[in-house]
Amino acid sequence: MRLVTFDAGRVGRLEDDTVVELACSSTREYFERGGDVGETGERLPLASVRLRAPIVPKKFFHTAGNFAVHHEELQKVNWSHPVHKGIVFFQNVDAIIGPDDAVVYPEGLTRELDYELELAVVIGRSGRWFGPDEAPGYIAGYTVFNDITARDIQRREMQSGVFSFSKGIDTFCPIGPWIVTADEIPDPQRLAMQLRVNGEVRQSGNTDQMVLTIPQLVAFHSPQGYSAGDIITTGTISGVAAVQPDPFAFYLKPGDVVEAEIEGVGLLRNRVAAWAEAHDTPPYTGSLYT
Amino acid sequence: MRLVTFDAGRVGRLEDDTVVELACSSTREYFERGGDVGETGERLPLASVRLRAPIVPKKFFHTAGNFAVHHEELQKVNWSHPVHKGIVFFQNVDAIIGPDDAVVYPEGLTRELDYELELAVVIGRSGRWFGPDEAPGYIAGYTVFNDITARDIQRREMQSGVFSFSKGIDTFCPIGPWIVTADEIPDPQRLAMQLRVNGEVRQSGNTDQMVLTIPQLVAFHSPQGYSAGDIITTGTISGVAAVQPDPFAFYLKPGDVVEAEIEGVGLLRNRVAAWAEAHDTPPYTGSLYT
Repeated sequence: MRLVTFDAGRVGRLEDDTVVELACSSTREYFERGGDVGETGERLPLASVRLRAPIVPKKFFHTAGNFAVHHEELQKVNWSHPVHKGIVFFQNVDAIIGPDDAVVYPEGLTRELDYELELAVVIGRSGRWFGPDEAPGYIAGYTVFNDITARDIQRREMQSGVFSFSKGIDTFCPIGPWIVTADEIPDPQRLAMQLRVNGEVRQSGNTDQMVLTIPQLVAFHSPQGYSAGDIITTGTISGVAAVQPDPFAFYLKPGDVVEAEIEGVGLLRNRVAAWAEAHDTPPYTGSLYT
Repeated sequence: MRLVTFDAGRVGRLEDDTVVELACSSTREYFERGGDVGETGERLPLASVRLRAPIVPKKFFHTAGNFAVHHEELQKVNWSHPVHKGIVFFQNVDAIIGPDDAVVYPEGLTRELDYELELAVVIGRSGRWFGPDEAPGYIAGYTVFNDITARDIQRREMQSGVFSFSKGIDTFCPIGPWIVTADEIPDPQRLAMQLRVNGEVRQSGNTDQMVLTIPQLVAFHSPQGYSAGDIITTGTISGVAAVQPDPFAFYLKPGDVVEAEIEGVGLLRNRVAAWAEAHDTPPYTGSLYT
């Protein structure tokens, strides 16, 4: 099943190109109720609705360093931290945007706006303290995540042993276009991943390159506890802008269109908007990170 | 005003030793409605109710490194990262517990359980991208936060440039005992802070030792956006266990009682419980962080 959020927050499931509306107030509630949700009777053509971020979870576990290929490319350009298994932090749930929403270029804050394609796992029920064997019972589905990152801020943050602000700025968390339930993905560790900018392939990989498997990751972080609808990401593949010979030729600019695609899950498309398109006021010129 | 959450999640304000119940479903809703909330007519003796965590925010901005005295004591024991202004990450909102709730000792995961007293600021309304001059208009109140930390896990996490899991384990986020509204705190930068373990003073300081002031902190992180009811912490003072000559004589053990107190805000008391008191199953013995 493909589960969608649309228009002003209505919930539905897709039947081919038709949205069948479901009788719940959010996809988070859908999972809290264990999927025991009826239909409203309304059916709408997919083309007639505006898809939104498929879920706003209570917690968004953001993992990192789970693809050796990405770690190796970072090391080559002196992102020199050791990458232990199980790196995690929480993503800003207020930065979540949906398919076709704009990533707003935060003028005055960064000059190094980067992309990172990741598979995001949706947790179906609450629980904590369990091992990899039990983890599949907690996995409800998958969506696509584009981990927008301000590299200049990240470099500075990492000197102090964190990276969070650089990935949590307003609009930096595109997810979507929908949640594909786990039953539709026969093998989540064998999905092709590709990210394109203005049609040009920038990242290519496969979920079979993960160091920790999805059940291992889900179990690993279970001492922090899960609520139904929580998201946990799985790390990015190689090809980010920061590792290119001339990164500034690859960093995102206003007007760029980013397509983040995972086989069997979906295609998430977002445009980078100039500050002035989204704000009535001039960019912030305060002393952040200076 | 002192705003409380009690029993199964009811909301009230204190009048001396009486709880005057308010007609809203959560303190978060109280702030979302701009405080425009009536009374239910119920009044209960404070001694007859069970206080809960005063709020479960949408986002819990956890800042760090904002007291030079704490940074200096860490440097002396080789916590050697540079401490830039504005270190931030998000705390696990599912780890929040309230006054008199137990911090459950996570046997098998850590042997270095530490405490950190912090003043937590409650944000009263949504907003983003503003400067320190505007920040006071976003500050609704204050509560006490005890930043429970597994130092052995934190040391390992910081090698990879994060620290989050070590502070986000189940029950690691005591806050309370209530929210004191900003109008009751004439000068939030002149409040005595003290943390005691089993009655012994471990941390002593004052909010006048902050590097970034509260309005500066609130403005600094505003590019990530605030929702009404969000929490932002302000850093801890000197005296944590990890910096003692014999830290293992200071780390928390099951049975310890921690009292975290801030002048004019309140006293937050939590006991450390053994694993077996809280769980029917034996401690986790999987391969986390090994």
